[in-house]
Amino acid sequence: MKTKKQIPGWKDKILFTPGPLTTSQTIKQAMLRDLGSRDVEFIRLVREVRHKLVELGQAKPDEYTAVLMQGSGTFGLEAVVSSTVPPDGKLLVIINGAYGKRLAKIASVLKIKTVTLEYPENTTPDPGEIEDTLKTDGKITNVTVVHCETTTGIVNPVREIGQIVAKSSAKYFVDAMSSFGAVPVNLAECNIDYLVSSANKCIEGVPGFSFVLCKISSLNETAEYARSLSFDLLEQYQGFEKNGQFRFTPPTHALAAFRQALAELEAEGGVPGRAERYRKNYETLIAGMRQMGFREYLRPEDQGYIITSFLYPDDPNFSFAEFYESLNQKDYVIYPGKVSDANCFRIGNIGRIFKADIKALLAAIRETITEMGVKLK
Amino acid sequence: MKTKKQIPGWKDKILFTPGPLTTSQTIKQAMLRDLGSRDVEFIRLVREVRHKLVELGQAKPDEYTAVLMQGSGTFGLEAVVSSTVPPDGKLLVIINGAYGKRLAKIASVLKIKTVTLEYPENTTPDPGEIEDTLKTDGKITNVTVVHCETTTGIVNPVREIGQIVAKSSAKYFVDAMSSFGAVPVNLAECNIDYLVSSANKCIEGVPGFSFVLCKISSLNETAEYARSLSFDLLEQYQGFEKNGQFRFTPPTHALAAFRQALAELEAEGGVPGRAERYRKNYETLIAGMRQMGFREYLRPEDQGYIITSFLYPDDPNFSFAEFYESLNQKDYVIYPGKVSDANCFRIGNIGRIFKADIKALLAAIRETITEMGVKLK
Repeated sequence: MKTKKQIPGWKDKILFTPGPLTTSQTIKQAMLRDLGSRDVEFIRLVREVRHKLVELGQAKPDEYTAVLMQGSGTFGLEAVVSSTVPPDGKLLVIINGAYGKRLAKIASVLKIKTVTLEYPENTTPDPGEIEDTLKTDGKITNVTVVHCETTTGIVNPVREIGQIVAKSSAKYFVDAMSSFGAVPVNLAECNIDYLVSSANKCIEGVPGFSFVLCKISSLNETAEYARSLSFDLLEQYQGFEKNGQFRFTPPTHALAAFRQALAELEAEGGVPGRAERYRKNYETLIAGMRQMGFREYLRPEDQGYIITSFLYPDDPNFSFAEFYESLNQKDYVIYPGKVSDANCFRIGNIGRIFKADIKALLAAIRETITEMGVKLK
Repeated sequence: MKTKKQIPGWKDKILFTPGPLTTSQTIKQAMLRDLGSRDVEFIRLVREVRHKLVELGQAKPDEYTAVLMQGSGTFGLEAVVSSTVPPDGKLLVIINGAYGKRLAKIASVLKIKTVTLEYPENTTPDPGEIEDTLKTDGKITNVTVVHCETTTGIVNPVREIGQIVAKSSAKYFVDAMSSFGAVPVNLAECNIDYLVSSANKCIEGVPGFSFVLCKISSLNETAEYARSLSFDLLEQYQGFEKNGQFRFTPPTHALAAFRQALAELEAEGGVPGRAERYRKNYETLIAGMRQMGFREYLRPEDQGYIITSFLYPDDPNFSFAEFYESLNQKDYVIYPGKVSDANCFRIGNIGRIFKADIKALLAAIRETITEMGVKLK
């Protein structure tokens, strides 16, 4: 394998991953400031960010609120599970990938009673079965599902599931980590009580916090549910409402970057504008990959435009480690697979990347498989 | 009150707070990059940072390890409490301020059996009483204390307490949030099993994660103790050891800033060099404040050089809100008090601030109290 010549200075690699992503220079430059976390300027910034997030959920500010939570996306998920399932509650987890399994794992560590409906990773959940489960098991208090399963890139029918959950008394929680900001969602119409996403996904901020969009009336019912001080969602909300501040030190620089990221999302035409760019990235990617002879893991009708899983080529000359490293040397970072029953790698379409970047990646992939002597057709 | 003229552009306010702090431009500029969280360059960065943190604790890498934890400092504290107290364990919390109380609160939310030894906020804990408590109550498995109580600025005798804990079988956990990096500590000599601090304190990074220095042999005994997935300290450690990666998305930009912050700490002469600058800041501050007629809350012998609590002047013309806002307009951010039985405000000496900044702050304070018509002597 060729090693890149060490030249002083650096140019960033382009990240075709599910996040952290490639972000714009202006978003990163917004971090060149030190704001006091209890100072009026930062309080204003937090208010503005929370307000815009509710708007992105197409929700009314008297019905929904945005609660920011320090840490990674998983921290936001754990905050919802640990703060909104009643002490004697029972959680239904709908699973068709690693992130659904993670939700069940969070509940299990928290010793929360859990029932799961598990589907193959290339299949969307069966709404009828969800409806039957809710009818049969009256003890289920909370239902959760992943919107876009980053494991494969499959997009689950969160609206349809929401309409089923609405017929029960259970609360509905959507893990929209890798979709929010690029796949439109109307919180009220989908009957969503809680939705989690992260700063460093489709809004294209930098990592450091996640956010929970909460139906205010549901959140207000959760007093004394919290199983953690840091993850107490209701107290975090009440803190924001009381004085506009985080209870504990926030990642001020990541928040400043996020405000800029929201402004750039708006400038791109909001969620529809961003969706269009990502969709073009996706279409360019699969057209080019198919042309080379790569095949996707999912059926096209289940595939979202966020991230795509490709099957390893059926050629003994292919080694993922070598493929990855060679692309890396060319300054393109792709992502390993996570599917349990097939050998895949993943390529993300999100972040500050454009059709031209996808074309450059495709050229690098073609060069790499030629170097490796891999035959695809 | 005069309102500052709105002039386009900005100059950052100087933060005399306990954090987030004023950081150097070069530390912030290290964030102008997007690193893949599973990429080799970032893995190398994490390894380097963890190694240097163990060195800062004057510890051997085969005896101690550094586990980084996403989120604020409180998240790191909760990770230790929730991951290292056995299921049937009992925690002794030594309290002389709000941060000691917070440790007890974390344990209470986690339903961990807790016993507290509480002292007035201007008094260091009584070692004899700690020794008696450990002798009398054989069920205590863990002991915790705050090193520098940011509530007041008091510095607690962590070494003396550690030597007492060493006579029992209990594990010893020090919250060194606002002291680590500027107040020397030898982990092994203090008998410390776990020590927590945060990126945005005396190492002068930006907020986004905390770190736990752990005695490896103690940490390895904690399998199955964790009460949370995100905060599972042993699994986080095992993840780092296995592939050098965080289990969940790390704040990559804050980590890049932190590597630069560690390099700048080293360039300043390490912990002794930084301690010297902070001590000079402190001495300049109290000399100037005393000269104006302000009085400190603590006795000088209990006062550390990290942060100082000053009593409100005994003059009806003094209003803290007005004092704070007027200094803010002059681009100096101070901090409200947190002492429960006295009206105080706080001024921090940490972050990228120098004697000249303290002198400028003193001049602004003098101007402000004159404007307010406050008489101090």
